[in-house]
Amino acid sequence: MASPLHTPRNAEISERDRSSVFHSWSAQGTLAPLPLAGGSGVEVWDADGRRYLDFSSMLVNVNIGHQHPRVVAAIQEQAAQLTTVAPAHAHEMRAHAAELVLKRAPEGFSKVFFTNGGADANENAIRMARLTTGRDKIVSHYRSYHGNTGAAIVATGDWRRMPNEYSRGHVHVFGPYLYRSEFWAETPEQECERALRHLERTVQAEGPDTIAAFLFETIPGTAGILVPPPGYLAGVREIADRYGILLILDEVMAGFARAGEWFAFDAFDVRPDLITFAKGVNSGYVPVGGVVISDAVAAVFDDRVFPGGLTYSGHPLAAASIVAAQEAMADEGVIENARRIGDEVIGPRLRTLAEESPLVGEVRGRGVFWAVELVADPATREPVATARVGAIKAAMLERGVLGFVAENRVHVVPPAVIGDADAHRGLDVLVEVLQAEATRG
Amino acid sequence: MASPLHTPRNAEISERDRSSVFHSWSAQGTLAPLPLAGGSGVEVWDADGRRYLDFSSMLVNVNIGHQHPRVVAAIQEQAAQLTTVAPAHAHEMRAHAAELVLKRAPEGFSKVFFTNGGADANENAIRMARLTTGRDKIVSHYRSYHGNTGAAIVATGDWRRMPNEYSRGHVHVFGPYLYRSEFWAETPEQECERALRHLERTVQAEGPDTIAAFLFETIPGTAGILVPPPGYLAGVREIADRYGILLILDEVMAGFARAGEWFAFDAFDVRPDLITFAKGVNSGYVPVGGVVISDAVAAVFDDRVFPGGLTYSGHPLAAASIVAAQEAMADEGVIENARRIGDEVIGPRLRTLAEESPLVGEVRGRGVFWAVELVADPATREPVATARVGAIKAAMLERGVLGFVAENRVHVVPPAVIGDADAHRGLDVLVEVLQAEATRG
Ligand SMILES: Cc1ncc(COP(=O)(O)O)c(C=O)c1O
Ligand SMILES: Cc1ncc(COP(=O)(O)O)c(C=O)c1O
Repeated sequence: MASPLHTPRNAEISERDRSSVFHSWSAQGTLAPLPLAGGSGVEVWDADGRRYLDFSSMLVNVNIGHQHPRVVAAIQEQAAQLTTVAPAHAHEMRAHAAELVLKRAPEGFSKVFFTNGGADANENAIRMARLTTGRDKIVSHYRSYHGNTGAAIVATGDWRRMPNEYSRGHVHVFGPYLYRSEFWAETPEQECERALRHLERTVQAEGPDTIAAFLFETIPGTAGILVPPPGYLAGVREIADRYGILLILDEVMAGFARAGEWFAFDAFDVRPDLITFAKGVNSGYVPVGGVVISDAVAAVFDDRVFPGGLTYSGHPLAAASIVAAQEAMADEGVIENARRIGDEVIGPRLRTLAEESPLVGEVRGRGVFWAVELVADPATREPVATARVGAIKAAMLERGVLGFVAENRVHVVPPAVIGDADAHRGLDVLVEVLQAEATRG
Repeated sequence: MASPLHTPRNAEISERDRSSVFHSWSAQGTLAPLPLAGGSGVEVWDADGRRYLDFSSMLVNVNIGHQHPRVVAAIQEQAAQLTTVAPAHAHEMRAHAAELVLKRAPEGFSKVFFTNGGADANENAIRMARLTTGRDKIVSHYRSYHGNTGAAIVATGDWRRMPNEYSRGHVHVFGPYLYRSEFWAETPEQECERALRHLERTVQAEGPDTIAAFLFETIPGTAGILVPPPGYLAGVREIADRYGILLILDEVMAGFARAGEWFAFDAFDVRPDLITFAKGVNSGYVPVGGVVISDAVAAVFDDRVFPGGLTYSGHPLAAASIVAAQEAMADEGVIENARRIGDEVIGPRLRTLAEESPLVGEVRGRGVFWAVELVADPATREPVATARVGAIKAAMLERGVLGFVAENRVHVVPPAVIGDADAHRGLDVLVEVLQAEATRG
């Protein structure tokens, strides 16, 4: 499959990588990273010239597809003008990027604070909530990921929190997840009602006056694309209001087309006080994230010094890439495409798969944000072994599809610009690989 | 001074900035940010076309000067190839960037973990130290800044820590600072010896077995460019070894030419276990930072999962800009230039200024990393009021020099590529402004 245009270089680059680069979330001795060299739209290719359909969007961030010409050109043009500006100065692209992000927020949001990624967006939202309320505790879901820095990693609920638990003032609750209900629920209505009861009881037991904010992913992503049942987020808002608690919605993964919406919470009846974003805002072409701040929270810092900041806040290259990505997404109907592909292609095909394959316990999602949960036994819902999920990912790669797996799940998370044919092509591979795996297992 | 090429746009951009952008470390109501539009070498210009000599290097990061053509071209070329790659894959530019950074580290450093900036570099170094030693506490200086995220901001010693003190396991000590000695010292030797005694006593009192690492800026920067006395860092290393404590040197501001060295610690007799970097590594053209990891620490994570990571670790644009900046700095003798300008121009002129101006209590620094400490009274060493420092910055700007001030100090921190004439031009303005201020005060 190697293209004649390329000298094979995978081996050399892998070797150099292994001897000098330290990788995240892994034991370094066991890595065999794929050396990527280029990409276009929904495809990437490695350094041997082999092409892959990207069903991962890298870390679920390349919503606009690889190498969108408008975004690439915007980066190149801004690079020619001015690459770096201290945050204390003003810069036109930074203001423009803030304006375009604010355009997607509900009424009553007035300011954007830019960071370098999702973790520090959550760090700064937490800081704002604590200083606004004068309270300490942040409540988040056990099934969640919010980033790798001091407070964000302790807000995170999954295993990554445990070796990093050095921040105080964090409390975790179970969120709604009917397929593996923590509340002995049997219907979505019951799951919703009970999850809300559990949340409110925890607030009362912790002491409402100690809680600054709820920090929730609108749709928990890495934890399994756990689309909340109707009414959950509205109920969370009600509890927040009842106890003077702020609501931070983490839209880092779910936002900007992933869920077929600008902000995923647009699909739900809820209004946050702070919104954190990264990934889809510029598809990760330049590292960036941020916090969208409601008027009430912004006003707190009109006369009071905000004690947070970072050297690259509102970086010109990041800002230029946001402006271009936001404009291209609007002009090209990327949100609508993601929603339609979810409704018409991915959703229906995954539901058929779930009916036909004993390996599939549940499928769920919306837009280009879907999880296929694999079980060893559909009756007990026992998750498949991690090794089998690894084998599935490898088999997909073998067939030219770069997949995304987490625990016992395959996440179907292609770029939001994917067309019908490519979506079917990737799903064909997934179905075929799962069939082979089901007969083997 | 407005160039005919520009339509004046400062007012419009300032207004847009004020209405949509939330700025770091400030009360938002009082801001009047300067709208920068472009730059070249040691100059920047605003959106009205007015040019300024950059004596700030923005946030002390543009070591290679503004818009270095090689670095700009590298970003543009990489943007055309592939802008974003998930950290789990390999990428040639990432490996190359790691190799070039490792080239500047002492023997026995084998891996680089890339982050988005300085704060998360320190977060990950702290994580590595805690997991390597199995101990919790991190000892840092009161006079220090390490970043704005959960652990980094509590490791920070200055006022920015206090509203953010939500992480546990941090201890602070006083470092050497003879001009305002905390140890009743009268000579550099005394200051050094007593600072080491204070550090060792703190270690003993905290319990040596509880301390994972010392996290020290090699030359505390924002805190006042506090060049350590000879022997201090070597003494720190000895204490670390005596108690099984790791030494993390924060080279975010001091590294990569700022102090006239590749790493500032090259000028001292010390070997760290972990080195954190950002800023000068690529002059901030793309947000990036990282941790350089010694063999012993890297080996810990060969079989053990490293529980840290971030979406943009080893971002291709960042990596390409590091490669180009590192090569250009080597080819163009930027380190040597910084050292020479410090030794031959900035140092001598500031020392003369200190002798002549009653307003100047002390000057200190090396390379392009100098502090001018202003006092209301040279006998009591009482710092000048902040308002006067603000007036000095404004007067410098008025005369076309973008300065950097902190508390009662002016920091002389131009790009490391500055030539003699420009250095003299900026220093002339500083001297003139301080003279006017001395006669006024
Ligand atoms: C929901 C969510 N929040 C925060 C983050 C952290 O973002 P970053 O990796 O840019 O720090 C992630 C990353 O996957 C995420 O999915
Ligand atoms: C010594 C030092 N460490 C860490 C940081 C934090 O870097 P960043 O702003 O990129 O997070 C800074 C920033 O000024 C610094 O000077």
